[in-house]
Amino acid sequence: MKFLFLIVFIYLLPQCTGKPLIRDDCHQHTFEEIKREIAGYSDIAKAIINLAVNGNAQNRSYERLANFVDTIGPRLSGSKNLEMAIKYMFRVLQEDGLENVHLEPVKVPHWERGEESAMMLAPRNHSIAILGLGSSVATPPEGITAEVLVVTSFDELHKRSQDAKGKIVVYNQPFVSYEETVKYRLLGAVEAGKVGAVASLIRSIASFSINSPHTGWQWYQSDVPKIPTACISVEDAEMMARMSSRGTRIVVTLKMGAKTYTDIVSFNTVAEIVGSKYPEQVVVVSGHLDSWDVGQGAMDDGGGAFISWEALSLIKDLGLRPKRTLRLVLWTAEEPGGVGAEQYYQLHKGNISNFDIVMESDSGTFMPMGLAFTGSDKARAILKEIMQLLQPINVTNIYENGGETDTDYWVRNGVPGASLRDDISKYFWFHHTQGDTMTVQDPSQMNLCAAVWTVVSYVIADIEEMLPR
Amino acid sequence: MKFLFLIVFIYLLPQCTGKPLIRDDCHQHTFEEIKREIAGYSDIAKAIINLAVNGNAQNRSYERLANFVDTIGPRLSGSKNLEMAIKYMFRVLQEDGLENVHLEPVKVPHWERGEESAMMLAPRNHSIAILGLGSSVATPPEGITAEVLVVTSFDELHKRSQDAKGKIVVYNQPFVSYEETVKYRLLGAVEAGKVGAVASLIRSIASFSINSPHTGWQWYQSDVPKIPTACISVEDAEMMARMSSRGTRIVVTLKMGAKTYTDIVSFNTVAEIVGSKYPEQVVVVSGHLDSWDVGQGAMDDGGGAFISWEALSLIKDLGLRPKRTLRLVLWTAEEPGGVGAEQYYQLHKGNISNFDIVMESDSGTFMPMGLAFTGSDKARAILKEIMQLLQPINVTNIYENGGETDTDYWVRNGVPGASLRDDISKYFWFHHTQGDTMTVQDPSQMNLCAAVWTVVSYVIADIEEMLPR
Repeated sequence: MKFLFLIVFIYLLPQCTGKPLIRDDCHQHTFEEIKREIAGYSDIAKAIINLAVNGNAQNRSYERLANFVDTIGPRLSGSKNLEMAIKYMFRVLQEDGLENVHLEPVKVPHWERGEESAMMLAPRNHSIAILGLGSSVATPPEGITAEVLVVTSFDELHKRSQDAKGKIVVYNQPFVSYEETVKYRLLGAVEAGKVGAVASLIRSIASFSINSPHTGWQWYQSDVPKIPTACISVEDAEMMARMSSRGTRIVVTLKMGAKTYTDIVSFNTVAEIVGSKYPEQVVVVSGHLDSWDVGQGAMDDGGGAFISWEALSLIKDLGLRPKRTLRLVLWTAEEPGGVGAEQYYQLHKGNISNFDIVMESDSGTFMPMGLAFTGSDKARAILKEIMQLLQPINVTNIYENGGETDTDYWVRNGVPGASLRDDISKYFWFHHTQGDTMTVQDPSQMNLCAAVWTVVSYVIADIEEMLPR
Repeated sequence: MKFLFLIVFIYLLPQCTGKPLIRDDCHQHTFEEIKREIAGYSDIAKAIINLAVNGNAQNRSYERLANFVDTIGPRLSGSKNLEMAIKYMFRVLQEDGLENVHLEPVKVPHWERGEESAMMLAPRNHSIAILGLGSSVATPPEGITAEVLVVTSFDELHKRSQDAKGKIVVYNQPFVSYEETVKYRLLGAVEAGKVGAVASLIRSIASFSINSPHTGWQWYQSDVPKIPTACISVEDAEMMARMSSRGTRIVVTLKMGAKTYTDIVSFNTVAEIVGSKYPEQVVVVSGHLDSWDVGQGAMDDGGGAFISWEALSLIKDLGLRPKRTLRLVLWTAEEPGGVGAEQYYQLHKGNISNFDIVMESDSGTFMPMGLAFTGSDKARAILKEIMQLLQPINVTNIYENGGETDTDYWVRNGVPGASLRDDISKYFWFHHTQGDTMTVQDPSQMNLCAAVWTVVSYVIADIEEMLPR
């Protein structure tokens, strides 16, 4: 396959005005052409914005999402709910008149939390709000009762490793940023297991809390004992840290009925508007359909999935058909680590040269600010022109790092990637909690996000050349 | 008793420079004197502020409160925890070297929520987060299973009263303000009971939610069937409203094991710094010691109780003794409706003429803005001068309505009343929820609140004249 790519690559190199590459020696000319070409989409961009924000499609993505999450609820990888969600989407995408609506089977993890609870027995009885972490093992049915060791960092745990044996390690690490702090959720059980702890309770990765535990996936290592692990609220972590700093002995009983079943078949859900001129070339717009098993998965990632669907609906409603194929992919099993997306990549990477751009919205659909982008300088210059079409709603910024969990497989291999950037100031208040519901979504903000998503994906799919890599 | 008061009153009228009244015909002179007198407290005010904010007492009220709420937990009227809390305070107030530390017995309600749950059965299985409302009756052990009627107001309920019979009424009223909206919590069950509903679920009285139910007291009427009633989260109320607006049939099973026991003896907790010159005259600083049975009751009203204690501690630490008695009262059973405070009033109202001012902090101890005050214009003018002493920390504002639940008995009968005003923008995010914990309290803000509380109460207790009524 690699050999064939090389031939195609060499063949295409000299094609200054052709597709898909823009060569340096003729870039100046071509870029001016592209600028003019993009400027020509001004009326279409306005029509998209108008339809999404003020027209018949106003609030449609919000209302569709509300209907979906109210009907299905949360949709964890491996669950019946996710299966129902996929069937639901398969039906409504067909009813919407989209093309090539189909499901692509993939194997996904099946973990269930079962019954779970944590009770502080000393210094006083107190019910601790917990959410077991994805892939955690269970406790014995009678639970694990042990004294608590509170630490604020892995460093402190390592320094106090002699104290950890037989204890339940409570991590009370401060929230710095999700990227920086999530290692405690991902590796807290492994690090505690290494020093002989019997369980770990991890302060939720949250920038604000109303006694809200935040779940999420975690990783074991094959050479380290697997200990049960759950997240607790910021409040309870802080309280146990205060008690511990006073020298108070804390005893907790943790019960978790979590179970990992064998992987099961799920599906990436796909729908298209087939390209008129280069149907084999694709622009991917996407979000993931699975969610955590709490709340409604409205924000993570219902919003991203439904503005992606909305992009195709708006284009169809306007009677538009881009030159390239616009492909909606609703990834399955993102939460266990981009599982559906990885298999999609393995299945389709042979066709990587035809992937123009991969777009995923998976960081909220609040007030949009622009797009994050990964790609060549030339592609970025083109995107900058396209973003000018969003002047009417003042969403023209371009940021770094356009890959998301599901699209990174492509981006790491050279395909331009874009993700939606929006006001995430409250995102980690709700992320992976019971509070991830329609209440956090705003129809006006979703309209704007859908407009951004649609203008960008449509114009990239319709301009004569693919984005240069 | 009234006759005696009248004699005292007449006797005192002509005493322009005497206590406790300032008469119009000599007010000008006296007020100038008072202004000068108050200005003379500038150094003492600075010393109080310095000790509270920067000195040895820095963060003391926060740390004392943390220790208290971490040790005791929540303290509902009638509970063992409240009993332990009172014993704890009795001990630490004595250890602090305060005077006349004693408990005054009162009868308080004893209601326990027991086990409770709500499960949506149709259109899908969904566990609804609830908190039963105080004084609610139980459901039968098997629960109440019924179709839901969602309304957004009492008006809508009355218009649809024919539909309510046999239903569980869900109120999805918008949050306007606590004062405006709390009627749905207080009277929701009565109004639903009048039209034949079998239970009521009330959207929490909350300005923000992370799926957080907010409990609170509610009132039955003797001529209306008592139906079980609980609060639900904003999120679930909105979801059921959306489902209902789509014509979706909703069925819920509500189980509540709530039980009202006979009233039991509790105590208002009192400590003093006895006045040097007019010991029979009192300035009351107060907060309530009871809380709801969720979270830690750190905000409502741990903060108010502990800055009130702090006021006495700071004055004692500075070696000060005001002319009048400074009395700390930690009310019991505020949450069921100022029950401890009412009995205190009945017991002590014979002495009302000696109550100089009643101060309660029960609206948070966040960043202080000033004091709310109820009293005569002359008293307000004096308070304005006192507030100038708080210029160093820029907390000089005076607002209206200085009564709180526990002090209103006095204020309605003519005693000047003051309450702390602070930044309550997040107060109703946490109020009566599992999120009312030390995490919402800020030591620096509590230092400032304590400084305000102390300067005002000390100066009022020490100036030559009582506040004119």
